[in-house]
Amino acid sequence: MTLSLDPNAIGAVLDGRWAPTRRLGRSLALNETTHLDPADDLETTRAKTLEAVGLMADTGLPLLALPESMGGENAHAANVAGFEETVTASPSLQIKAGVQFGLFGGAILHLGNSRQHESWLRPAMTGELLGSFAMTEIGHGSDVSAIGTTATYLPEDEEFVIDTPFTAATKEFIGNAARDARAAVVFAQLVTGGVNHGVHAFFVPLRTSDGQPLPGITFTDDGYKGGLPGVDNGRISFDGVRIPRTHLLDRYGAVDAAGAYSSPITSPGRRFFTMLGTLVQGRVSLDGAAIVASKLALDIAIRYGLERRQFTTSDEITETTLMDYQQHQRRLMPRLAAVYASALAHEKLLTSFDEVFSGADDSEENRALLETRAAAFKADSTWLALDVIQECREACGGAGYMAENRLVGLRADLDVYVTFEGDNTVLLQLAAKRILGDYAKEFAHIDVGGVARFIGTQAAEHSLYRTGLANAGLAISDAFTRGLGDRRIRSGKLQRSLLETRLEVMVSELAGDLRPATKMSPAAAAELFNSQQHELIEMARAYVELEKWKALDETMRAQDDPDQAKVFRRLRDAYGLSLIEKHMSWHLMYGRLPMSRARQLPDTLNRLCAKLAANSLDLVEAFGYTDKHRRATIATGIEAQRQREAAEHYRRARSRRDFPVPEKHLIRQTTSSAV
Amino acid sequence: MTLSLDPNAIGAVLDGRWAPTRRLGRSLALNETTHLDPADDLETTRAKTLEAVGLMADTGLPLLALPESMGGENAHAANVAGFEETVTASPSLQIKAGVQFGLFGGAILHLGNSRQHESWLRPAMTGELLGSFAMTEIGHGSDVSAIGTTATYLPEDEEFVIDTPFTAATKEFIGNAARDARAAVVFAQLVTGGVNHGVHAFFVPLRTSDGQPLPGITFTDDGYKGGLPGVDNGRISFDGVRIPRTHLLDRYGAVDAAGAYSSPITSPGRRFFTMLGTLVQGRVSLDGAAIVASKLALDIAIRYGLERRQFTTSDEITETTLMDYQQHQRRLMPRLAAVYASALAHEKLLTSFDEVFSGADDSEENRALLETRAAAFKADSTWLALDVIQECREACGGAGYMAENRLVGLRADLDVYVTFEGDNTVLLQLAAKRILGDYAKEFAHIDVGGVARFIGTQAAEHSLYRTGLANAGLAISDAFTRGLGDRRIRSGKLQRSLLETRLEVMVSELAGDLRPATKMSPAAAAELFNSQQHELIEMARAYVELEKWKALDETMRAQDDPDQAKVFRRLRDAYGLSLIEKHMSWHLMYGRLPMSRARQLPDTLNRLCAKLAANSLDLVEAFGYTDKHRRATIATGIEAQRQREAAEHYRRARSRRDFPVPEKHLIRQTTSSAV
Repeated sequence: MTLSLDPNAIGAVLDGRWAPTRRLGRSLALNETTHLDPADDLETTRAKTLEAVGLMADTGLPLLALPESMGGENAHAANVAGFEETVTASPSLQIKAGVQFGLFGGAILHLGNSRQHESWLRPAMTGELLGSFAMTEIGHGSDVSAIGTTATYLPEDEEFVIDTPFTAATKEFIGNAARDARAAVVFAQLVTGGVNHGVHAFFVPLRTSDGQPLPGITFTDDGYKGGLPGVDNGRISFDGVRIPRTHLLDRYGAVDAAGAYSSPITSPGRRFFTMLGTLVQGRVSLDGAAIVASKLALDIAIRYGLERRQFTTSDEITETTLMDYQQHQRRLMPRLAAVYASALAHEKLLTSFDEVFSGADDSEENRALLETRAAAFKADSTWLALDVIQECREACGGAGYMAENRLVGLRADLDVYVTFEGDNTVLLQLAAKRILGDYAKEFAHIDVGGVARFIGTQAAEHSLYRTGLANAGLAISDAFTRGLGDRRIRSGKLQRSLLETRLEVMVSELAGDLRPATKMSPAAAAELFNSQQHELIEMARAYVELEKWKALDETMRAQDDPDQAKVFRRLRDAYGLSLIEKHMSWHLMYGRLPMSRARQLPDTLNRLCAKLAANSLDLVEAFGYTDKHRRATIATGIEAQRQREAAEHYRRARSRRDFPVPEKHLIRQTTSSAV
Repeated sequence: MTLSLDPNAIGAVLDGRWAPTRRLGRSLALNETTHLDPADDLETTRAKTLEAVGLMADTGLPLLALPESMGGENAHAANVAGFEETVTASPSLQIKAGVQFGLFGGAILHLGNSRQHESWLRPAMTGELLGSFAMTEIGHGSDVSAIGTTATYLPEDEEFVIDTPFTAATKEFIGNAARDARAAVVFAQLVTGGVNHGVHAFFVPLRTSDGQPLPGITFTDDGYKGGLPGVDNGRISFDGVRIPRTHLLDRYGAVDAAGAYSSPITSPGRRFFTMLGTLVQGRVSLDGAAIVASKLALDIAIRYGLERRQFTTSDEITETTLMDYQQHQRRLMPRLAAVYASALAHEKLLTSFDEVFSGADDSEENRALLETRAAAFKADSTWLALDVIQECREACGGAGYMAENRLVGLRADLDVYVTFEGDNTVLLQLAAKRILGDYAKEFAHIDVGGVARFIGTQAAEHSLYRTGLANAGLAISDAFTRGLGDRRIRSGKLQRSLLETRLEVMVSELAGDLRPATKMSPAAAAELFNSQQHELIEMARAYVELEKWKALDETMRAQDDPDQAKVFRRLRDAYGLSLIEKHMSWHLMYGRLPMSRARQLPDTLNRLCAKLAANSLDLVEAFGYTDKHRRATIATGIEAQRQREAAEHYRRARSRRDFPVPEKHLIRQTTSSAV
């Protein structure tokens, strides 16, 4: 059952194409300066985090993303891969650095002109010029188009005046704002000649070099949050703040000296989404960062679970390791598989991100696909991280609740990842709408025979679902899964077929249900969409799940070493079967899975988890983290050492024959067969 | 759709029989001294919490549990009901007070003799004598019988000597130990005359009155945890610590001066579980405390969701409140229903607890039922609390992550509730084993016809499940649900039938699968049990879910006011349908739910959630909490106020006709139809 695996070889698969910068990002955790201490007060923690941001700048990672002309390497994925590994040092560092280099620097890079690049980009990317990214307001987070901050052009002075016209328009949750930022990229409604041209980005100095607020600018410290204590979030309000005309980041919309507005993109809507689209890097990197945090948590909990013993079960002497319990395996192994799937899918996302941003393939299709995936993956991976870290915390019992074992801190820090850079619920709706659009397009380009076939399928779906002929439906469905019905539930083909069919049916049903919206009043259309909101979100999740499953499946096929291929197969199956179990009622109701196969599932999954548990140490060793990355006392071997000490005590007591202890204490084994 | 409800009347139902002490417990939150501040350092927070414990003692609540002979009222449930409401002040207070009065005081009360009561009980219950409850060790938490601390009797001195013989035997996570406790009830292996009589409890002084450790006692501060900063957890180790013989809490096991051991319970196993059983109050009160925390979180998130607006959907002018979105309703309403169900089921648990501990019905059956329920309810309600608080936190977006809005603090504090007083996974197994035992007993007492019928049913189950005749199974199952098949999915009878059948089938299948264990070697039996561990845990959860559903159903039936009855019906249905949806694949695979009914479920649940959302403010008002209990800025009406300010700004701008804003900003409505 136990496979012979080389963790380094598996690690190479996981670390992928950008392994060198991953290792560079990871190396920051080896420097103790980057470690936060819960005993420090807020200001000390913030100062330490700022220092860590400086250390990160010193690695040169942020400069990688700059164009060659500015001494960079136009290496976007390499930069992001390294950056997301800084979670091992601390999520506060990752987020504060993300604000500085990814959002503040990134906005200048993607929205600014070459003169602006010359002025601000290098100082931003070296950390010399500390900045904020001031988009969200108290009143509007998800609906950025409705923000209230204004930038009104005054041609007589060739200046914009930035204003916060009411409380709800105050910039809120802005990273670096409470303490460190000297400037910000501020999003505001651009008004010139009495016309509002919608949201644009402006470079606005905030503080003097010694940290005093500039005139007209007011800061409020957001203070304590659920986590991320090293990030100084705050509010910013503007009262008649003047900036030169040349501070408009004008790649997608410019104002000349006289106040005339021009843009390479005519449609205001398309312009707005193009501007926001350049900021996709944030979502890409949160997807990766969430996976790093999940790996750390599993690394800690699995090491502890392999050592920790509680209760004698199989005999009266040897206590059982936690990892030998079925439920413990069921808690941790499917999550380990999901994290592997996520890591491999993330590598594909990075590839697509690199193609778009390096210019290698900057087609509209590729950009749209990148945006859809980034939104959906970020949502799925950040929720997965919360689930994984919490399960790991609970799996370590009371020890998991101690700050010194890291898990509670990771959980607290990662919490807000599901909200920022796009609330997950909103992102999944965005992805769902994109997927529906693709489906419509596909429909338009399909050949006539294809259409006929497709409509036939769709009709069958609908009759199956709507007529209540579910039992008859089972027979119909067998036609769909012809040749699959006799496959074992572990069959990759069966898994793929189930995951694909579910997505396809959900998409086609939603398309059918929502099609009337195009002919409705806006109010009626909105109501119709709202009535399908839950289903839209589920469909987008089905999409991510399939993509992640495919990443594991492809990786499995690419392995030469037979045991390594086998372990990836086990991971794929554990992930696939967990998904099928989660959505079992769907597969049954749609007659996609014969009952006989469905009944195999729980036992098959239990056996798979037991097999994966036998190699679980290899699978977490492959993450490439050390004690300095994990920083969890319980994952250092201390538990086994204490068990040896106790066993030695009982052995001595027995030999003295003067110390009465129950038999099960006398010769308790302390070496685990699994470790 | 919107019902006319009186929140006070619903509140009276929720607060139940012990409303007066509930209000007393809740009143502590009105005193600002009890509020913690994240800006305080750890020692300040601990000191404040200790002060709050003193305020709680001043209410006289802890004395209620004392016997009449000691000036108490023998009022156990009244005490617990008041105590669990202190979560509204702070969970740190609830836990620190729980250690002091419930565990330390409770152990003296339930395990000590009358002389010991006279010496220590009153000082413990007034907070004059601060104490710890030292059971858990580094090496053993769930398996208390295997702890390593020893109490060896020395007849020559008439003393016990307490020792920590190796590191793993160090007492760990002990509340009040790091700073405040002057004494502890210590659990240790009682050794006299060369024989180990198993785990017993001892009263051990720890510190001098000015806080210096007594000789032989070493403390280690556990420092920072995931939450509960006001609770000073720590480690305690003992090196040859002498206590008088009379410090053994000897209700269930005594040692005379010469060292002879005696006990009213012959079986060491039964003795051990009887001693632990007296401590059931901890689990009962955590069940209630978790429900209070869940109520607070829903109270905050629902108030905010009813005011907060984002995106214009139905027209270009009015932004939609979060609560109008289907997904928002789906996130919050089923959880609100689950919390109502839990609160009402908790009231029944309290009744049973009161019967047992007041002596009104202290039968073995009632005690066993209480222990089973307390274990299962505590597990379900504490997991529910984490789920509810987190969903509320996410539903409030970035604002939910700010400490000033309370949710992250509640989440962090409640986290460990799933672990202490029995890890949830372990507790559910305990409950499952008890339920199986009941089932076997029932089986033994059943009349012959009943047995036949039962065996018939069971055989049908097995053939249905095991022969793969699932389609045929649908026909068979219709016989079971005869008269139910044509009922709407909202039918209470159908819901009850589905929930009951699932539990019964799970129990009978497990009984069948595990029966061979009685004839196996211990190792083989353990392996068999382990292979069903996941299923056992699921069965125990099915048990709790049914109990909670029944509590809602009974409450609904007891209402006279028609609208009040209707809202309890909606809550019951939302809870019931959520459970049926969660386990849909089971109901389908076992042919318990016709596909035609199953298909009604999602839409029915969506409509129910919309209806509940329309009354959601009433339903949280009914909790009886004020701003001083919630202490969340976003739940104070500030959001609506900001919207009014923004709307006024846009109205003025429009009237001036000199400020260009998009039409949708001009006349944005800010009063919610729902509030």
